[in-house]
Amino acid sequence: MLAKKYSKVAVGGTFDKFHEGHRLLIEKAFQIGENVLIGVTSDEFGGIKGEIEPCDVRMSNLNSLIKNRSNYILARLEEHYGPTVDDEAIDAIVVSPETEHTALKINQIRQKKGMKPLDIITIGMVLAQDGKPISSTRIRKGEIDSVGKIIKE
Amino acid sequence: MLAKKYSKVAVGGTFDKFHEGHRLLIEKAFQIGENVLIGVTSDEFGGIKGEIEPCDVRMSNLNSLIKNRSNYILARLEEHYGPTVDDEAIDAIVVSPETEHTALKINQIRQKKGMKPLDIITIGMVLAQDGKPISSTRIRKGEIDSVGKIIKE
Repeated sequence: MLAKKYSKVAVGGTFDKFHEGHRLLIEKAFQIGENVLIGVTSDEFGGIKGEIEPCDVRMSNLNSLIKNRSNYILARLEEHYGPTVDDEAIDAIVVSPETEHTALKINQIRQKKGMKPLDIITIGMVLAQDGKPISSTRIRKGEIDSVGKIIKE
Repeated sequence: MLAKKYSKVAVGGTFDKFHEGHRLLIEKAFQIGENVLIGVTSDEFGGIKGEIEPCDVRMSNLNSLIKNRSNYILARLEEHYGPTVDDEAIDAIVVSPETEHTALKINQIRQKKGMKPLDIITIGMVLAQDGKPISSTRIRKGEIDSVGKIIKE
């Protein structure tokens, strides 16, 4: 049985230390969306989180993943919500349990402005070898690699 | 452009004072799922919330909405999670911002058991005439009707 895809799906993040969870998030967006809007936090805005890779490196990691696709826009985000609170054409957003609160906030803002709320698609965390979620923070700390393998001391 | 639907989608709730938000939730489940599993809290379990309609009435309201469909199972829920923490065939769950925490909990349980997490699809709240969300609680209090019209004193 076949169903129509969402016309425009947003996905966003810092995408530091590009890992398996990021890959799944992006792939889900292409799976459900005809067009995908990928927001990547700028160096100024993303830098709030501490020591992260430069935006150009993070963009280039994303580009390697999606280089064979054409139905996307890759945009630098200078603030939390980007076009998701202005663009009526966006109809869904893909998030992880960690960023879901941002999507709920986006819908509050959209509804206050009289805009249609987005469908929020929350995917599961990808678990590392130790059963705990893979995260950029854990990779930055040197606990695991990008596919969740434990790094031995 | 066309995409494959989810094979089996779960949706659940008490569905007291059947309203516009409930209708949208159920319709979203059929829109994205080949098969839909609808869980309705039993009188014993749902009764925790206070004075609600009998399960048979709530089931019958649901039945009126879906009577022309065949691709669903309507099940009484005796506890919070029902088959969602056992059934490997379920691949997504549709929730409102109010019940989303239950879906996150379901995924934690599934992942602890080594099961694939569900995609969680959170739809927006339907707003009443006064711009605040429609809810069974507000209808029970006599503030609004099932489509969100303000009930004058």
